[in-house]
Amino acid sequence: MAKFIDVHSGMKGITSEQLLEAHRKDQATEARDGMHFLKAWADPTSGKIFCLSEGPSREAVMKVHERSGHPTAEIYEVPLEVT
Amino acid sequence: MAKFIDVHSGMKGITSEQLLEAHRKDQATEARDGMHFLKAWADPTSGKIFCLSEGPSREAVMKVHERSGHPTAEIYEVPLEVT
Repeated sequence: MAKFIDVHSGMKGITSEQLLEAHRKDQATEARDGMHFLKAWADPTSGKIFCLSEGPSREAVMKVHERSGHPTAEIYEVPLEVT
Repeated sequence: MAKFIDVHSGMKGITSEQLLEAHRKDQATEARDGMHFLKAWADPTSGKIFCLSEGPSREAVMKVHERSGHPTAEIYEVPLEVT
């Protein structure tokens, strides 16, 4: 099980409802690829979205996001984490 | 009080100890700018680091990171968050 942060761009003006809808869409099918989407943060001004997830691979992150209709190529495995 | 995600690049090969040291350095002086650095994640393969923080402004994030010797211009305010 690894952790991932992926980044989406170009979502200027995204609303709270749209972010939640996109996140719930991922969560609805994530189990098919052994993924779990933990959190997502959005900046409506720049249009950036950051998703934190855990699962088996970058490819699994990509598959879930593709199925939800919001693919991104910018996916990082983040094995190091500090609090 | 707002939340921020900032991104550092070019840190290929960063170790767990180096990430912790950098994060502790931020936390040691963050109060001067009313900031709190909550979490940081790193991908040693791509050299990306993501920091999650809360505080008054992007400028405050920038000041703390500059004082710690790891400035970045890539700072996003993330008013939207879902779990």
